[in-house]
Amino acid sequence: MISNPPPDEEHVDDQMVKMEVNLDDISGEWLGYVMDILFEAGANDVFYTPIYMKKNRPGVLLQLLCRRVDLDKMKEILLKETTTLGIRYYPLTVYRSERNFKKVKTEWGTVTVKQGIYKNEVIQSSPEFEECKAIAKRHGVPLKKVYEHVWKELNK
Amino acid sequence: MISNPPPDEEHVDDQMVKMEVNLDDISGEWLGYVMDILFEAGANDVFYTPIYMKKNRPGVLLQLLCRRVDLDKMKEILLKETTTLGIRYYPLTVYRSERNFKKVKTEWGTVTVKQGIYKNEVIQSSPEFEECKAIAKRHGVPLKKVYEHVWKELNK
Amino acid sequence: MISNPPPDEEHVDDQMVKMEVNLDDISGEWLGYVMDILFEAGANDVFYTPIYMKKNRPGVLLQLLCRRVDLDKMKEILLKETTTLGIRYYPLTVYRSERNFKKVKTEWGTVTVKQGIYKNEVIQSSPEFEECKAIAKRHGVPLKKVYEHVWKELNK
Amino acid sequence: MISNPPPDEEHVDDQMVKMEVNLDDISGEWLGYVMDILFEAGANDVFYTPIYMKKNRPGVLLQLLCRRVDLDKMKEILLKETTTLGIRYYPLTVYRSERNFKKVKTEWGTVTVKQGIYKNEVIQSSPEFEECKAIAKRHGVPLKKVYEHVWKELNK
Amino acid sequence: MISNPPPDEEHVDDQMVKMEVNLDDISGEWLGYVMDILFEAGANDVFYTPIYMKKNRPGVLLQLLCRRVDLDKMKEILLKETTTLGIRYYPLTVYRSERNFKKVKTEWGTVTVKQGIYKNEVIQSSPEFEECKAIAKRHGVPLKKVYEHVWKELNK
Amino acid sequence: MISNPPPDEEHVDDQMVKMEVNLDDISGEWLGYVMDILFEAGANDVFYTPIYMKKNRPGVLLQLLCRRVDLDKMKEILLKETTTLGIRYYPLTVYRSERNFKKVKTEWGTVTVKQGIYKNEVIQSSPEFEECKAIAKRHGVPLKKVYEHVWKELNK
Repeated sequence: MISNPPPDEEHVDDQMVKMEVNLDDISGEWLGYVMDILFEAGANDVFYTPIYMKKNRPGVLLQLLCRRVDLDKMKEILLKETTTLGIRYYPLTVYRSERNFKKVKTEWGTVTVKQGIYKNEVIQSSPEFEECKAIAKRHGVPLKKVYEHVWKELNK
Repeated sequence: MISNPPPDEEHVDDQMVKMEVNLDDISGEWLGYVMDILFEAGANDVFYTPIYMKKNRPGVLLQLLCRRVDLDKMKEILLKETTTLGIRYYPLTVYRSERNFKKVKTEWGTVTVKQGIYKNEVIQSSPEFEECKAIAKRHGVPLKKVYEHVWKELNK
Repeated sequence: MISNPPPDEEHVDDQMVKMEVNLDDISGEWLGYVMDILFEAGANDVFYTPIYMKKNRPGVLLQLLCRRVDLDKMKEILLKETTTLGIRYYPLTVYRSERNFKKVKTEWGTVTVKQGIYKNEVIQSSPEFEECKAIAKRHGVPLKKVYEHVWKELNK
Repeated sequence: MISNPPPDEEHVDDQMVKMEVNLDDISGEWLGYVMDILFEAGANDVFYTPIYMKKNRPGVLLQLLCRRVDLDKMKEILLKETTTLGIRYYPLTVYRSERNFKKVKTEWGTVTVKQGIYKNEVIQSSPEFEECKAIAKRHGVPLKKVYEHVWKELNK
Repeated sequence: MISNPPPDEEHVDDQMVKMEVNLDDISGEWLGYVMDILFEAGANDVFYTPIYMKKNRPGVLLQLLCRRVDLDKMKEILLKETTTLGIRYYPLTVYRSERNFKKVKTEWGTVTVKQGIYKNEVIQSSPEFEECKAIAKRHGVPLKKVYEHVWKELNK
Repeated sequence: MISNPPPDEEHVDDQMVKMEVNLDDISGEWLGYVMDILFEAGANDVFYTPIYMKKNRPGVLLQLLCRRVDLDKMKEILLKETTTLGIRYYPLTVYRSERNFKKVKTEWGTVTVKQGIYKNEVIQSSPEFEECKAIAKRHGVPLKKVYEHVWKELNK
């Protein structure tokens, strides 16, 4: 296991960092946009948690995962796009399991299924959301039905 | 049971209304203030729930309970103090149990305990928060300890 | 459509009521228990929402669905088992789709699948959780795997 | 005030309904999609609340506002796209304040500002999010800065 | 203070780790089960937080506290029972206060009370939930009443 | 950058710690008070998150940021004022941007605006909440209007 591994092989990544910001003076409207911007800039993950802050304020905790080398880039976006003047962070380790990709044929076209592998066993099969969504839209079928068809074909 | 009963007797109040507002373009800082203003204006209750709104926005659902006759007053505050242009509401019924108030002596002074009565039985005993808090502050003791002493005396 | 229909046929039930209680002076420990008690007494559904109450208090909104005829029974439990002295409620209508039950054989035994029917089409297939859980426990397999097998057999 | 008023004038709409669904057997991935579908089909609002359901399940409460005439259309989408077999609903009234639209020039182009009017006073000014976002993207400036410029020009 | 102390004495444990997983493609139904499985396998604590993830998805953050030596065991359960392919973790320190256990007699039988000790003072007294619950069930009394009786006896 | 910098200059502070406590046996009433006590004792930040704990319990995660040197003081308050017997913590780093303070005249008096500076650019302007609130109260105007006036004057 090395620090910059082929991303689809099982590995432990010890070069990651979590950044956190507490926000009580920004609107939800802006926060929806901020999340997109951070993903586009290379954040590995961004998510919000509702929090209770002082003076009866419903606030939002922004959490962001990124590589250490991207810390400054993320910091600059947080300062410019949110209302915060302070950002806290700490290192963490990420384990990622081996994954491969399988093509599954359905009556509406081919769908990629991401599979997670652990100790040579398939432990997870996830049809790609964007592909299923595109089919649902194009063919006017419920998304649920598209997933069901993919699972059915996958298990044949 | 009548529509404007002595408030400490068991009664069913069918003159209440719940108002609701979804907010995605206001800060938590302002919302902390709005709650206070609404209580001061006579709202029976005001509370916030974190909600997921469109376009990935963490929003807040404001819910407010008031008497029907106060609907217009509350509406005006909501329009002036929050960012909403729309307010929804519907009638509801409130059951309130009989309550009385008991004085309990502690080593730090007397504390009022609100008791709920149901079918002639005491079903709830709540020391008044503000009085306990005042004692905790004045005597430099944990709030938890103040409550414990009140319960102890109450049960003697 | 009648007010007391065979429960597995599509129907509209206009004899339901939602009850609500705001709680800021009870522990989570008790609330976990209260939910069980209310289900045992015949509530159709009970669920909690985290809410922001006055004076910076993280509170809980208890919502309960039941038949109108059960209102008093539920009220008594709420008064005795929680700390509230006030309960609000309002009528609502419930649409329930047709449902039937299918048996599916797996390598670990038979599992019931609840199916939802809408306009003569199967729109939902849900393996019974408790049966899948029992299999997972008994055979030492992941619950996820049990569901996958049921879906696989169902789609054959 | 009439039941089908010009939408930009102050009015009270008593032909609205709120629908609710509790969900504990669907993924967040699908729910993100369901919200879009419901808005496209004409829902006035759709939002999610995290709830605590039985058996230690983190669930989601889906709430949807629509006109009474759209009840069946929404019901069909909920049945086909989510996992629910039951939908509850109740009528509510919506107050909407008068609104008009103003054009504001900035160095990056014109932005529409929606204004809320109450008793002949401007009580709210909201720059249109999508227009501000488009400018932010096109000119590579923070969204926050775009809003600040709009407010500045608006107040000149 | 040592790294493997008698668990009831005050100590600082620096061999703990927190694991975190973001989940947007799993149902609440499964998550209720996953929590039980993790506790049974020796997790010190497991809890969920509602989070806002990309693409408008209501997700769940799973947090798990365990000893470093149990990291691999927990990892395997998370991979097999949830839908994740990535797990992050970081070390933390846990302070635990001295605790002892006291027996309290009530009219319905004996109840254990866990007491927290700090600087030779009792700072916390917690009746054991499962014992109180068993009494409430067996004797058909509200859980609230059982706790009140235990506190009353404790303070005599 | 040094470890004890002038607080208004840009700096990185590596002497901070985050403390966490899970709470399922305390009321929201007490937690509102606990937050105030912790801020008064010098906590840099305190906030609550709703969490799902074992046995169907809606709980609260208390998070607290403080300097390492204040760890013991905070620990003592948490033990005495909450119901916990265990506290976990880990170090983190805090980046704080340069900030300065500007006075802005309005028709109701002067308001301080805190400005955040990054690479010699003003990236954030925040009117002081308590000053705006005092004006709103004294002059009977909406808080929203006070902020709007401050922004207007600031941008002249």
